Amino acid sequence: MAETMKAVRLFLDWHPREDAQLGIRDIEGKRAQEGSKVWRNPRVQIVQESLPKIGATKVLIKVKACGICGSDVLMVDSDEARYTRYGYLMSNGVTIGHEFSGEIVAMGEKVAELQARTGKEIFSIGTPVAAQCVVNCGLCEKCKEGEFDECWLTEERGFSVDGVMAEYVVADLRHIYSLDDLKEKYPGEELFLAGALIEPLAGVYKALVDVAGGLDPGDSAVVIGGGAIGLSGVALLKTIGAATVILFEPSSQRRELGKAMGADYTFDPGQESLEETVLRLTRGVGAKIYFEAAGVAARVCSDIDSLFKAGEAGSKLVLMGHGEEYVTVSTETLIGKYNVIVGSHGHSGVWRNVIKMVAAGLIDPRKMITRKITLEEVPEWLTILRTNKEEGKVVIVF
Amino acid sequence: MAETMKAVRLFLDWHPREDAQLGIRDIEGKRAQEGSKVWRNPRVQIVQESLPKIGATKVLIKVKACGICGSDVLMVDSDEARYTRYGYLMSNGVTIGHEFSGEIVAMGEKVAELQARTGKEIFSIGTPVAAQCVVNCGLCEKCKEGEFDECWLTEERGFSVDGVMAEYVVADLRHIYSLDDLKEKYPGEELFLAGALIEPLAGVYKALVDVAGGLDPGDSAVVIGGGAIGLSGVALLKTIGAATVILFEPSSQRRELGKAMGADYTFDPGQESLEETVLRLTRGVGAKIYFEAAGVAARVCSDIDSLFKAGEAGSKLVLMGHGEEYVTVSTETLIGKYNVIVGSHGHSGVWRNVIKMVAAGLIDPRKMITRKITLEEVPEWLTILRTNKEEGKVVIVF
Amino acid sequence: MAETMKAVRLFLDWHPREDAQLGIRDIEGKRAQEGSKVWRNPRVQIVQESLPKIGATKVLIKVKACGICGSDVLMVDSDEARYTRYGYLMSNGVTIGHEFSGEIVAMGEKVAELQARTGKEIFSIGTPVAAQCVVNCGLCEKCKEGEFDECWLTEERGFSVDGVMAEYVVADLRHIYSLDDLKEKYPGEELFLAGALIEPLAGVYKALVDVAGGLDPGDSAVVIGGGAIGLSGVALLKTIGAATVILFEPSSQRRELGKAMGADYTFDPGQESLEETVLRLTRGVGAKIYFEAAGVAARVCSDIDSLFKAGEAGSKLVLMGHGEEYVTVSTETLIGKYNVIVGSHGHSGVWRNVIKMVAAGLIDPRKMITRKITLEEVPEWLTILRTNKEEGKVVIVF
Amino acid sequence: MAETMKAVRLFLDWHPREDAQLGIRDIEGKRAQEGSKVWRNPRVQIVQESLPKIGATKVLIKVKACGICGSDVLMVDSDEARYTRYGYLMSNGVTIGHEFSGEIVAMGEKVAELQARTGKEIFSIGTPVAAQCVVNCGLCEKCKEGEFDECWLTEERGFSVDGVMAEYVVADLRHIYSLDDLKEKYPGEELFLAGALIEPLAGVYKALVDVAGGLDPGDSAVVIGGGAIGLSGVALLKTIGAATVILFEPSSQRRELGKAMGADYTFDPGQESLEETVLRLTRGVGAKIYFEAAGVAARVCSDIDSLFKAGEAGSKLVLMGHGEEYVTVSTETLIGKYNVIVGSHGHSGVWRNVIKMVAAGLIDPRKMITRKITLEEVPEWLTILRTNKEEGKVVIVF
Repeated sequence: MAETMKAVRLFLDWHPREDAQLGIRDIEGKRAQEGSKVWRNPRVQIVQESLPKIGATKVLIKVKACGICGSDVLMVDSDEARYTRYGYLMSNGVTIGHEFSGEIVAMGEKVAELQARTGKEIFSIGTPVAAQCVVNCGLCEKCKEGEFDECWLTEERGFSVDGVMAEYVVADLRHIYSLDDLKEKYPGEELFLAGALIEPLAGVYKALVDVAGGLDPGDSAVVIGGGAIGLSGVALLKTIGAATVILFEPSSQRRELGKAMGADYTFDPGQESLEETVLRLTRGVGAKIYFEAAGVAARVCSDIDSLFKAGEAGSKLVLMGHGEEYVTVSTETLIGKYNVIVGSHGHSGVWRNVIKMVAAGLIDPRKMITRKITLEEVPEWLTILRTNKEEGKVVIVF
Repeated sequence: MAETMKAVRLFLDWHPREDAQLGIRDIEGKRAQEGSKVWRNPRVQIVQESLPKIGATKVLIKVKACGICGSDVLMVDSDEARYTRYGYLMSNGVTIGHEFSGEIVAMGEKVAELQARTGKEIFSIGTPVAAQCVVNCGLCEKCKEGEFDECWLTEERGFSVDGVMAEYVVADLRHIYSLDDLKEKYPGEELFLAGALIEPLAGVYKALVDVAGGLDPGDSAVVIGGGAIGLSGVALLKTIGAATVILFEPSSQRRELGKAMGADYTFDPGQESLEETVLRLTRGVGAKIYFEAAGVAARVCSDIDSLFKAGEAGSKLVLMGHGEEYVTVSTETLIGKYNVIVGSHGHSGVWRNVIKMVAAGLIDPRKMITRKITLEEVPEWLTILRTNKEEGKVVIVF
Repeated sequence: MAETMKAVRLFLDWHPREDAQLGIRDIEGKRAQEGSKVWRNPRVQIVQESLPKIGATKVLIKVKACGICGSDVLMVDSDEARYTRYGYLMSNGVTIGHEFSGEIVAMGEKVAELQARTGKEIFSIGTPVAAQCVVNCGLCEKCKEGEFDECWLTEERGFSVDGVMAEYVVADLRHIYSLDDLKEKYPGEELFLAGALIEPLAGVYKALVDVAGGLDPGDSAVVIGGGAIGLSGVALLKTIGAATVILFEPSSQRRELGKAMGADYTFDPGQESLEETVLRLTRGVGAKIYFEAAGVAARVCSDIDSLFKAGEAGSKLVLMGHGEEYVTVSTETLIGKYNVIVGSHGHSGVWRNVIKMVAAGLIDPRKMITRKITLEEVPEWLTILRTNKEEGKVVIVF
Repeated sequence: MAETMKAVRLFLDWHPREDAQLGIRDIEGKRAQEGSKVWRNPRVQIVQESLPKIGATKVLIKVKACGICGSDVLMVDSDEARYTRYGYLMSNGVTIGHEFSGEIVAMGEKVAELQARTGKEIFSIGTPVAAQCVVNCGLCEKCKEGEFDECWLTEERGFSVDGVMAEYVVADLRHIYSLDDLKEKYPGEELFLAGALIEPLAGVYKALVDVAGGLDPGDSAVVIGGGAIGLSGVALLKTIGAATVILFEPSSQRRELGKAMGADYTFDPGQESLEETVLRLTRGVGAKIYFEAAGVAARVCSDIDSLFKAGEAGSKLVLMGHGEEYVTVSTETLIGKYNVIVGSHGHSGVWRNVIKMVAAGLIDPRKMITRKITLEEVPEWLTILRTNKEEGKVVIVF
């Protein structure tokens, strides 16, 4: 094992906006709950540094593949006043990156002992793993209730604590998942490509299955936005029995990816009316799930309102796309059709099932990958992806 | 049995507004899906007429008690252009009234035979009954799926077909429910007072239990609006294990009724901030259910948005209050807290359980009654209640 | 249209066993709730008879394809005392058969009128349709609640009222479903082959999706028995996201059908241990759903008990296989692992979604068909299938 | 604070039975997964010992009240071969007792710091608390999924690690719950009496609400067994909207407690038939939930089978009563009526809601207390309660 490693770090200047409301979890110069309200002049730098130390219940992971997420691009991008464009939890000086897979290369002193006591040795040196980016505390009232994504003290790997755009990363046993089951269907390095994309799938699984309650097999579904979240949604909805999945996405390349992930129909929302298209293809029934994965809720909610009103009862609007957006829907529509509007974030608790789906080949997230790059190319691609909305997933391979 | 009876009929003039969109179910001079877009000059008249005929699977019911609902008041009221204020399904010339109880006085020729074949003789001459106002067709695709409130050909008793502000009314076996179980706790005529108010309770039961999925016992709940729907909501939420139920209602008399129905706290929304009050009383947790029963969704959704954001995850806004209102909520709030917005109407399928709750004394809907009137007083009270927002339930007794 | 038609009728002798408990719904010589307790000497006869008359809300269907179900075989088979082997609702002299598809050739006088009023003309002359065999009354307390499969006065098409092994059959609007959506993927007569097998799929959909609540995508599932119910279960479980579906079935031909329907693994239960095989293939996790579709609950419940105990929490045993069987499971297992045992029958309310699944090609039930026969061959095949447990679905084509 | 304290310790001899199957979690002389298979000669001793040390995230609690549970009695009791009668996880030499409340008297160095960072200071010196007895590891695959009661490395306070029949006990932040909300309704020491009985209520809440999915308000429920679990079940079922709760319990004193906790009817199962009584009181509908809390599943399942068959669809048998029992139910019943059999144990994740219910006065668990004793009296009462099945809850007060 090397003694030093490369890592992509993000540096920021503390400069709260006038309307920033700082709270107990905002720490001057270090950590802000709402990044874009505080942090200015984001600078990415590839640094050479010591390998991180591992605690008793932690493992050291050699990173093998890491996807670039829209959040990574937003953190590094800035507005005209030079504030970062990312509005959530962000720390200064941390390694970014959170969608990844790797291999265990060292384990804290309690890991092997704990494993042995379970009689189920899931993790050992060489085990391929992924880790969730939600680094919950495990001690607060919400963690006690198993609601880890609601942790009162949560950190986020790659946002507020060191992430995975680095040759090595440390993670706690509480947050890692074995990718062993992927070996059969994804030989060699392919495992790591698939494994790096478990993370976006997990968020979508939580939103569509756990939070929204899925759909009745045979129902139709609509996905708005063909980025990694939308494409994962397409694949998941098809996998759980959607008769028809319709994707709306402006980029033709991403629409192609939508088809590859299982969409029955894809449309350019600039060309085709959401409302009319969906009513036509579902013969007036409408979709059971409208999955908003583009952060354009405000722009589509009028169409959704019309679809709710025209379609059969019980349709749901499921929100995952971030943005400074408001949903506005007529109460008469909601009352008349028992419609549901619900949002979701996070991904705790669903990883093992998502991994089994990928291991079984029900979903192959590699299909979303349109480009592989090196760690050195990350700064360049973080810039390119500000404007390029055609790529599928760009993955760093190590 | 008498040969003629008194009935309160509503007469209207067909005069579609310019923006009215008439469809296949609108029939000139007879029936309009959206009353306030079509009907003008509402006139109530007490008529003396023949008793209705009963078909083979129908029963004739002698009406014993009938509540006046806000819808009844709106139908008869009109705006400055003299259009009725009620915006939903309405026919010309029908007897109004839909919340009632009565006694079976005659049965169609197949009723006794069908009863005998079940081995369970629920209905016979003298059985106290209530009937749902949803008169679904039983034949369309939604009826086939048991979704009667979604019937494609639905009629509504007291709106599009003859209702219950009359000495007698006919109803189909498919739509009536025995009140026999109420005899023990509601002796004599008291049974009919309780029985007449099963209908609003049933709508609330469907919304809160079936559609919204209830709450976890120990959660808190907020009810907005202390009319019959809101008061029924208070009682139901308390009965299913809400630790704290908080009612917001401007009228002090209705707030008193709220207390009687089980509210732990009541407030005048003109005096107390919804947001601050709820956070204070729930120690920052917020309510699990916000039940909008006043038709003021647009006015309260900013507070709800703040409460969603400040409170713990998973709160729901449940909409039953009609009105030309829009709900506007931040997507970031919904995403951040897994909030749910959902609406409900109708009441099919829940009646037997509601009756059992009332029979067991878990809820005593008579507590909502503030006034008993005669059929002759109905026109006067339909006018009084346009402005009087202090009364609880006004009930016609026969 | 012809004036007469061929039909396969079943004649029986009324001869209640000593321990038969006759009730209000048993009618001497005509109808028995528990066939095998009453009916003796089953005789099948192909008769030539007049076409049935249609009532106002009914349609006449020209039958195009009809599957033979295990129930059909049992009704006609008898034990050593010459009692029929079928233990449920059965009438004397009715046409048997209940899994079918056909084409509307005539409609009662109210059908077109009702259709017109909905603005959605689903049924007309020539529409391909299927019909449920549950002929619920629509009037009893359970029908009022939309629980049609619990109807207090239910009849069953092909068991207690005339069924579909006939050139024509009458069905009520309340019980028919359009197969129009199948036209695209199943051209010409193929539509009717697929359509005839909606019925068993619908029963399985109700059991696994509605009653058992499905599984979490990525879970594993086990199916016991590779008849039409088991095979439909295999296909459905795979379609809703089971990572691994394992079929246990003695016949090698049926195991092949299992593979065609989507099973990842198939085993002969005479050769392989249920317990060991499932634990091995699921790496100790066990299946989320064990679907008993062979009527051998008593024989497998010891293995299920062990699997419940050894596997992860929350596994469910879902029972659909009829038989004089008892389930015996240790309470400590159930308590220790939150296991669920649940049964299901019937199929009301799910047909439109099942048809959409088949229309979308998610499930192609034609794969279960191993033989097509004529109506004249029915008596012979009812005898052959008593002992032949190798065939998949035998379908009568007209 | 004292430097030493009294504690009730249980000593045992390691002597595995011939058929004992020892596994990786059984440690000679120290710890056995199935106590009654290994441990002999249980001896209770009140010892004087040093106060326990607290780790960084732990608190020291001065115990104020502690209930005696049936498990405590069984652990100390032995069979004719002198093996303990308790069949689950048990260690040698630990302090017993697990139902308790107390007051924080010292906190580990990280507790205040963590609290401060949340902005919600729930725990401080003097805070009244209760703690769950499930001491899950927080690191295994099940803990990662929030399924703490399924922890692969779980310890149990009072069974495998030191419990609460002692003047002080240590617990981790992860396992404690504030009782502050109880102050209003339970003044002074009363708070601790109510607080000590949160534990059995929590187990019942999990079983009936989380695992069994509750009931529809207005349904009936039956509870079998009037110990603390059964009595808690009575109260909870009534609180969530059961119209009628029927308790079967041999002891007349416990039946009285049942009434006090909310039972509408109580019966001696030796005098009244479960089947007939329930059908009579529910007018043939049957109960929605049958809650087995006496460990007599085998003895009642024939009645349950009959009730399932005779009653309306969807009844559930919910198992919490431990014992070497098997449930045997006819598959035809389960299939015919969609019945559900399900078991539950543990109590993680529900404590805050249970505390809110008690704080609101919805349930007052003090009503179950029939006797208060001192720590010195514990050995005597552990013996008395072997045969005395009349007492409600016996509580040690400090």
